[in-house]
Amino acid sequence: MQMPSMPQPTFYIFKCEQSAPPGMPKPSCVNQQTQELFNHLAQTLMQKGVFGPVQAIRTSCLGRCQMGPVMLVEPGHYMYSHLSKEKIDKIVEQHILGGEPVIEYLIPEQFWGEPVSLGK
Amino acid sequence: MQMPSMPQPTFYIFKCEQSAPPGMPKPSCVNQQTQELFNHLAQTLMQKGVFGPVQAIRTSCLGRCQMGPVMLVEPGHYMYSHLSKEKIDKIVEQHILGGEPVIEYLIPEQFWGEPVSLGK
Repeated sequence: MQMPSMPQPTFYIFKCEQSAPPGMPKPSCVNQQTQELFNHLAQTLMQKGVFGPVQAIRTSCLGRCQMGPVMLVEPGHYMYSHLSKEKIDKIVEQHILGGEPVIEYLIPEQFWGEPVSLGK
Repeated sequence: MQMPSMPQPTFYIFKCEQSAPPGMPKPSCVNQQTQELFNHLAQTLMQKGVFGPVQAIRTSCLGRCQMGPVMLVEPGHYMYSHLSKEKIDKIVEQHILGGEPVIEYLIPEQFWGEPVSLGK
């Protein structure tokens, strides 16, 4: 008898959870105004009944502090920037449930250029 | 004058950094035997001169505890399981620097089946 296989997550959503000490001039993805975004994302996924197949993951710094709060949706490699609760709602609805990335919320191309080649 | 664009990272390597309390029967990706793996990965990338274009990211639980330690390489959506320092060395050499994923270290297909559709 063949065992049923365990499906991979339909989406991973990697939310940068890096904060900076109060008063530090460098921007960060988590501050007093934005600290609820991860929970908002997780709760929205639960309310939509897709928490499980969609995994919300906390990460260390994703290296796009100036564009924060940011999160990366995989598969697809979609980096969203300048997040708010409203933007997260639309991303869940249109991209996660609907399969259509929200192009206008993606990080500006200026900050997401072609990757450098590491080829030997 | 056009500003030069900032390249996206060539690779993100998402290393699960979830630990469990001592004595807990559930497996986890970080324990006394495996707690050095993230630093080993970061140091290896530094030694190879690719830390920067390659970003090593710490994450919360990736949901494959039984297969841990695990890490996900993006873009490409390659989930590696049962990691060791030696496996990380080979993944950096062959996949990150050489562009050829290490197929034999990928998570078994049994645990990475076709994702469920969320389509409405």
